[in-house]
Amino acid sequence: MRETFDDYTIKESLFFSLRMMQLSKALWKTIEKDWQQWINPYDLTINEHHILWIIYYLKDASISEIAKLGVMHVSTAFNFSKKLEIRGYLQFSKKENDMRNTYIQLTEKGEELVLSIFKAYEPLQNTVFKGSLPLHHLHGKFPDFIEMMTIVRSIYGNDFMKMFEYSFDNIEKPIENA
Amino acid sequence: MRETFDDYTIKESLFFSLRMMQLSKALWKTIEKDWQQWINPYDLTINEHHILWIIYYLKDASISEIAKLGVMHVSTAFNFSKKLEIRGYLQFSKKENDMRNTYIQLTEKGEELVLSIFKAYEPLQNTVFKGSLPLHHLHGKFPDFIEMMTIVRSIYGNDFMKMFEYSFDNIEKPIENA
Repeated sequence: MRETFDDYTIKESLFFSLRMMQLSKALWKTIEKDWQQWINPYDLTINEHHILWIIYYLKDASISEIAKLGVMHVSTAFNFSKKLEIRGYLQFSKKENDMRNTYIQLTEKGEELVLSIFKAYEPLQNTVFKGSLPLHHLHGKFPDFIEMMTIVRSIYGNDFMKMFEYSFDNIEKPIENA
Repeated sequence: MRETFDDYTIKESLFFSLRMMQLSKALWKTIEKDWQQWINPYDLTINEHHILWIIYYLKDASISEIAKLGVMHVSTAFNFSKKLEIRGYLQFSKKENDMRNTYIQLTEKGEELVLSIFKAYEPLQNTVFKGSLPLHHLHGKFPDFIEMMTIVRSIYGNDFMKMFEYSFDNIEKPIENA
C-alpha cells in the first residue's frame, strides 16, 4: 500500500475517516431525533429552531451569519427565516449606516418562544445527555470533547468557535432567572 | 433555576446538550459533504455506500443488522438494498437452516465496487482528515475520540461497538494488499 510523505499511511487515514464517518453519523442521528422531539410541540424544524437560537444570542444577525453559524446553505437560511417572519417570530430590517445588508431580529413573540423552548428542556428525555451521564459520574463533569472542538475549529475557523462560546454567555442570564 | 437531584443543574445539562447539538451538526455536515464527494463518481448515496460497506465486512447481513449498523430505518435499509440488488451489487438469499430471515451478500461486482471506492480514498481531499492533522502532528497519532466513543457505546450498546471494531479487522487485509 502507498505510504504518504508524512508519518501516516493511506490505510491509517482511511481507517480514521471511516471511524469518524460511522461515529459522527451515529451521534448526529441521535441528536437529530432528540432535537426534533424537544421542539416538536412548537411546530418548528431543526433549522428553524437553530435560526431562532442564533438570532437570540446575536441580537441581530445577517443571513450569512445565520448560514455560517447554523451550518446551512444561505438559501436555506433565507427561506426558513422568511417562514419564521410570516409566523411573526422575527423581522427583517436595514441599518441606517449600512443599507446594503439586511439584518434580522427576533420579535417579542420570537424571544418568548426561544425562552420557553429552553425552559422546556428536560435532560432525562435527551438520549445523548443520558449517554454522557456515566462520564459525568466518572469525571465529576460533562465531557468537553476537546478533540472534536479542535477539529471543528480547524475546519470552521476561530470566529465560528468564538461565536459558539459567546452563544452561551448570552443565554446564561435569562436562563438563570427562569 | 431548578436543581436536579443529581450533581448537575438543568442549566449545565442544557448547555451541554446545546454544545453537543452545535458541534455534532457542524462535524456531521462536513463529513456528509466529504462522504458524498468521495462516492460521487460511483453514483451512490451515502446510505447505499454504507450498506455496501456493512455487507462487505459482515460477509452476509440481515436487513435489521444493516439498519442497526448503518443507523437507518429498516425500511430505508430495505429500499436501498433493493436498488443495489437491481444494479447487480448484491443478492438476497435464505439460509437453509433459517428460512425465516433473508440474508444479503455482495456479488463479485459489488465487492469490486467497495474495494475500488476504498482505493480511491484520498486523505487530502477529506476536510475532516485535514482538520485532524494538527492533532496528529501534536500527538503523533490520530485522535481516538474516547468521549464520543463512550457516549455512542452507551446509546447504541456494546454489540454496536464490537461490530464497529470488527469492521476494521475485516477490511484491513484487502486494503493492505491493494
